[in-house]
Amino acid sequence: MNWQDIFATRMGRMKASEIRELLKLLDQPDIISFAGGIPDPALFPVQAFQGAMTDALSPANSSAALQYSVSEGYGPLRDWIVDEMTALGVPCTRDNILITSGSQQALDYLGKLLLSPNDTALIGWPTYLGALGAFNAYEPNYDQLIPRGNRSAADYAQTAKDKGGQVKFAYASVDFANPTGETLDRTARESILDLAETLDIAVIEDSAYQALRYDGDPVPPMLALEVERKGSIDTCRTLYCGSFSKTLAPGLRVGWVCGASEVISQMVLMKQAADLHSATLNQMAINTVARALFADHTANLRRVYRVRRDTMLAALQEHMPEGVTWTKPEGGMFVWVTLPKNIDGGELLRHALETQKLAFVPGQAFFADRSGANTLRLAYSLADEAQINEGMQRLGAAIRDLA
Amino acid sequence: MNWQDIFATRMGRMKASEIRELLKLLDQPDIISFAGGIPDPALFPVQAFQGAMTDALSPANSSAALQYSVSEGYGPLRDWIVDEMTALGVPCTRDNILITSGSQQALDYLGKLLLSPNDTALIGWPTYLGALGAFNAYEPNYDQLIPRGNRSAADYAQTAKDKGGQVKFAYASVDFANPTGETLDRTARESILDLAETLDIAVIEDSAYQALRYDGDPVPPMLALEVERKGSIDTCRTLYCGSFSKTLAPGLRVGWVCGASEVISQMVLMKQAADLHSATLNQMAINTVARALFADHTANLRRVYRVRRDTMLAALQEHMPEGVTWTKPEGGMFVWVTLPKNIDGGELLRHALETQKLAFVPGQAFFADRSGANTLRLAYSLADEAQINEGMQRLGAAIRDLA
Repeated sequence: MNWQDIFATRMGRMKASEIRELLKLLDQPDIISFAGGIPDPALFPVQAFQGAMTDALSPANSSAALQYSVSEGYGPLRDWIVDEMTALGVPCTRDNILITSGSQQALDYLGKLLLSPNDTALIGWPTYLGALGAFNAYEPNYDQLIPRGNRSAADYAQTAKDKGGQVKFAYASVDFANPTGETLDRTARESILDLAETLDIAVIEDSAYQALRYDGDPVPPMLALEVERKGSIDTCRTLYCGSFSKTLAPGLRVGWVCGASEVISQMVLMKQAADLHSATLNQMAINTVARALFADHTANLRRVYRVRRDTMLAALQEHMPEGVTWTKPEGGMFVWVTLPKNIDGGELLRHALETQKLAFVPGQAFFADRSGANTLRLAYSLADEAQINEGMQRLGAAIRDLA
Repeated sequence: MNWQDIFATRMGRMKASEIRELLKLLDQPDIISFAGGIPDPALFPVQAFQGAMTDALSPANSSAALQYSVSEGYGPLRDWIVDEMTALGVPCTRDNILITSGSQQALDYLGKLLLSPNDTALIGWPTYLGALGAFNAYEPNYDQLIPRGNRSAADYAQTAKDKGGQVKFAYASVDFANPTGETLDRTARESILDLAETLDIAVIEDSAYQALRYDGDPVPPMLALEVERKGSIDTCRTLYCGSFSKTLAPGLRVGWVCGASEVISQMVLMKQAADLHSATLNQMAINTVARALFADHTANLRRVYRVRRDTMLAALQEHMPEGVTWTKPEGGMFVWVTLPKNIDGGELLRHALETQKLAFVPGQAFFADRSGANTLRLAYSLADEAQINEGMQRLGAAIRDLA
């Protein structure tokens, strides 16, 4: 049987991810890896989850915890998120919250909701690789939202029309973005909202790292800025994607979308058709743990990760040869490195693995147009200070070899 | 903002489900409901799950249980499923198994994998409502696989071509199907495989109720029959969807697809892009519980549910007026009732709710062509014997009112 003959056309866009292939290397124990943007398991609130699971599986709760539940998500958890969003400047109700299986599922559902084949998504150059993966399934074109240059709204609209569709949304990771570590300032956020108003499109705000700010002043979410303009979330075009993966634990797969109730109710129907609901037990456990310790726990994460960021920035300063530049993130897990033009990140990875037992992610995969060959992403979340210092020394040596 | 203007065309097919709206009625405590096809929570292996969660969150396992994991699923659970599938006549390896978030997600992914807009899916008339919901997102046409009548393969192909696409798969729920409770015999299964060979299409075998056989001889899965023909799963066109929702617990959202490794590896990429992976902790817990008690636990479920089925069949015999017929399922959770032609299932539900405080699902929703107005589905899984007797008496009275 020739499966390629009966696969849907969208499968032509679904290829093996470079990050995925790379992660297989992590099984080799003597590699120092800055590849995966994953939280340090030593920081998981294990004891709190033990208590939460005991509670969820107690006689009073186990029938509900192990049973089917509603597609929109567990009510008390949606209430906790309502309070959290309200504190971020987004007054809302349960009807504005859909629980998803991680924010990756939120991105998949938003692509499914908005993109017909040949429609255009405006994204960063570079952008989160997982967003490209999720959206690709719905066969869009991409255009460059960030950096925007001098392009007008009319130019975006015409370019999309020339490609056989229309612009459907602008997608931006706003705080300490994956992969660059950069944060959009208030002016940049207002400018995206202005563009979206003119084009009459949605805004997808990816806020997975929001709680991990180590210094600098918080910038309000685009959704909060839009609520300021319009007075109510239900007339807003911004759909905010949040996640517990970077704060409590990724293995439970719990995230959320916050937006206009008209859109959330449509996404509830989509979720019902796609997987009925996210695991009941997990939502109950996340609710218990978030209510018990979210603020204290994220404060501790910030304390630990801040030291790693500072260590990495100092080690880059010490070990990078001339001609190499990098971002100075105010939070999150990533530093983005730009190499001299003649050095290819993929070649550097092969060389660094072989000669230095060092891993990171070449930057090219994060660009929809496959530019950015001379870039790479470093994640500092999983490495201790000694590994970071040793790793940056090795990175400097590998770059010098290819310079 | 007019969201309808920017929603993808596929959203036109995604409407509120009648079952979903109906389930809201279950909050009224004095209603006797045979609507939801959901397991009895009194039968959940709660103690085993408590132990499994304690183990998963122990120092040796918690880092893995709460962390990101691979998209294909937890290795030891895939190994358990390999043994289970082998026992069902499907020798296979880990590479033939993808873990999904319930078998509903498997149906969504298989629609996404195979259906371009206007392609045709062959389904039952009636069929599982959740399959219609999952497939609808990929904008297919439907044609009638069961009952097939005298239609030839060429006729199926031509009909699909006339509608602007090609036949991509035949979908069948094989054992004690939702909604009819009926089982396809070996001849029917072989006939679907023959048709699929001629059309060169995939076969989706929905086997969610497989473990719940109360009497009669087991029929080999279509995938086992195809392995018999071809010698290896990797040259088979059947994709088998299994679930722990009806055997261990639906609230953990764990199911699987078993099929040719070429298809599974493509679905792994799809899952990575859509939600990264199913919850790690849940897969570990299901693995522990399945290994500890799957055989004994399902034997107990069969003992309990068999009594409920027998009670319902006897009560139908006692209380149904002349002109009403129903299926005699060998397992599962459902009896399918055919009313006299002039009685509409939707009207009967409204009348039964109002005058008898009785709920069930009108059959029309299970037909892609909205036929079957004089049918309804009864689920006996959640009701005790007294409720079943009382409920069938009330149903008889409601039908007599409308006759």
